[in-house]
Amino acid sequence: MSRIVRVGAAQMGGISRNEPKESVVEKLLGQMRRAHGEGCDIVVFPELALTTYFARWLIEDEEELDRFCEADMPSPATRPLFDEAARLEIGFHLGYAELAVENGVKRRFNSSVLADKNGRIINRFRKIHLPGRVEPDPGFAAQALEKRYFEVGDTGYRTVRGFGGVMGVCICNDRRWAESYRVLALKGAEMIFIGYNTPTKPYWAHEEDPLSDFHNHLSMQAGAYQNCCWIVGVAKAGMEDGEELIGGTCIIAPTGEVVAACETREQELICADCDLDLARDLKDNLLNFEQHRRIEHYGLITGQRGVVEPD
Amino acid sequence: MSRIVRVGAAQMGGISRNEPKESVVEKLLGQMRRAHGEGCDIVVFPELALTTYFARWLIEDEEELDRFCEADMPSPATRPLFDEAARLEIGFHLGYAELAVENGVKRRFNSSVLADKNGRIINRFRKIHLPGRVEPDPGFAAQALEKRYFEVGDTGYRTVRGFGGVMGVCICNDRRWAESYRVLALKGAEMIFIGYNTPTKPYWAHEEDPLSDFHNHLSMQAGAYQNCCWIVGVAKAGMEDGEELIGGTCIIAPTGEVVAACETREQELICADCDLDLARDLKDNLLNFEQHRRIEHYGLITGQRGVVEPD
Repeated sequence: MSRIVRVGAAQMGGISRNEPKESVVEKLLGQMRRAHGEGCDIVVFPELALTTYFARWLIEDEEELDRFCEADMPSPATRPLFDEAARLEIGFHLGYAELAVENGVKRRFNSSVLADKNGRIINRFRKIHLPGRVEPDPGFAAQALEKRYFEVGDTGYRTVRGFGGVMGVCICNDRRWAESYRVLALKGAEMIFIGYNTPTKPYWAHEEDPLSDFHNHLSMQAGAYQNCCWIVGVAKAGMEDGEELIGGTCIIAPTGEVVAACETREQELICADCDLDLARDLKDNLLNFEQHRRIEHYGLITGQRGVVEPD
Repeated sequence: MSRIVRVGAAQMGGISRNEPKESVVEKLLGQMRRAHGEGCDIVVFPELALTTYFARWLIEDEEELDRFCEADMPSPATRPLFDEAARLEIGFHLGYAELAVENGVKRRFNSSVLADKNGRIINRFRKIHLPGRVEPDPGFAAQALEKRYFEVGDTGYRTVRGFGGVMGVCICNDRRWAESYRVLALKGAEMIFIGYNTPTKPYWAHEEDPLSDFHNHLSMQAGAYQNCCWIVGVAKAGMEDGEELIGGTCIIAPTGEVVAACETREQELICADCDLDLARDLKDNLLNFEQHRRIEHYGLITGQRGVVEPD
């Protein structure tokens, strides 16, 4: 048996601080049409795909911050994406900064939506693992102030039926935490979409990290294998407002093998036919959760946040 | 700062069904002396290091099964290892089949001990994730009847101070489950010892798996990186009673990089100076558990064993 989903992973280049969203959306539409031309069922855009990674700066002007965010989704700027998706009958995944006013209180999240082939939103997710700091560290040119601008996501990890299978989402730094894949897999995820913006120079380091591409792939490949699911990891890549971002956009099979990968740090589109029934034997045998997981021994994972050393 | 532990990973060749334990222990003593000659603080032996992997057969003779097990540790056969370790002042890790009579009930576990430089046992562990089946499948020449012969370990994941740091242990199939590394890391593990016996042909397959080496390393490398700890993975390798076992014994840094690896499927010894303070910056920043883990979103990991798909 096989259930094929043809996926397009649309790596983006950098977006400058002052680039209008309409201009960005034009590029996304171009990639969407290209993916449609390649026969894709879905095109996957990265995290914060409408703007620069603004968490690299301390921004105290609330209005400027709000302009980076969408108060609705579809928003005026993104409506053309939904319309074109419905016209072409192609699904899409889009990461964006979300402004939510709930009970009169303004909240921001690092979010994503998944739209089906009718341009209908079928999944909304708010990023859980926010990297970086609340307060800027003056010793660094580029910050990662996600803990300042965003709240920890309150949607939980969600899966949804779509594209002939069960789809899950997490965002950027969520991919370094094995819990993300496991919770999604426990909810049946057969494919996980992950957008990211990852600088080549970590927020706490003064040098480029030669292992950043390796760690990016290692985490996603292990997540795919250990949970028998496809992973589509998509970067905003290259130089953005003076900060270099890794690329490494890739489509990973449930075997952990990378089946397609971008080669540049520029806008690129890679496609793959993904069989959701691949690695069925792994899922039924060696990595059969029901047969082998021993939850009575996992208590600390939910019971304790930080490390407690032995006496 | 650096805290160096010099580790020897002692890959073993196959052990035949009728080989006396005394003969096996002679080989282990040889490897221990070699490791001591290389200046090692500890030598790591694999899972079930005293016998063949007897779970590949249906054995109904209880006495034969019991002969594969140690009722005490040190046992008469292994006493020379403890004595020589104390004499040489080298620690060791040893996997073995354990026979425990508790309240008049006979129980078997797939176990390991960690001994310090005085030959004193400082950690005992009983394997948690038992692979395979309870009943043999007549369609296969080699079985994996660990669920028949062994009980699920009841020690939990344990860490212990030793060798200048905090040491943890898990066994073979435990390494494919991200929960193993995470629980150990939450208990402060800075180095994890993992012995294994892994056939090149999975117990549910009729062909060799071309990805078995890849999956072996992928799981351990991701476990090392995501938990910022050293991993020492040690195989019983090569042909054993007609079944071929993978090798791939390796020492993995907290960066996820393999710093030393065996190249054969025979007895081999690899050594590395392991700095327990390596990747301190990762642990303090990007992968700082206390800062970033969101246990309120991990509930399913302990609350649900198998997959539950969305409606």
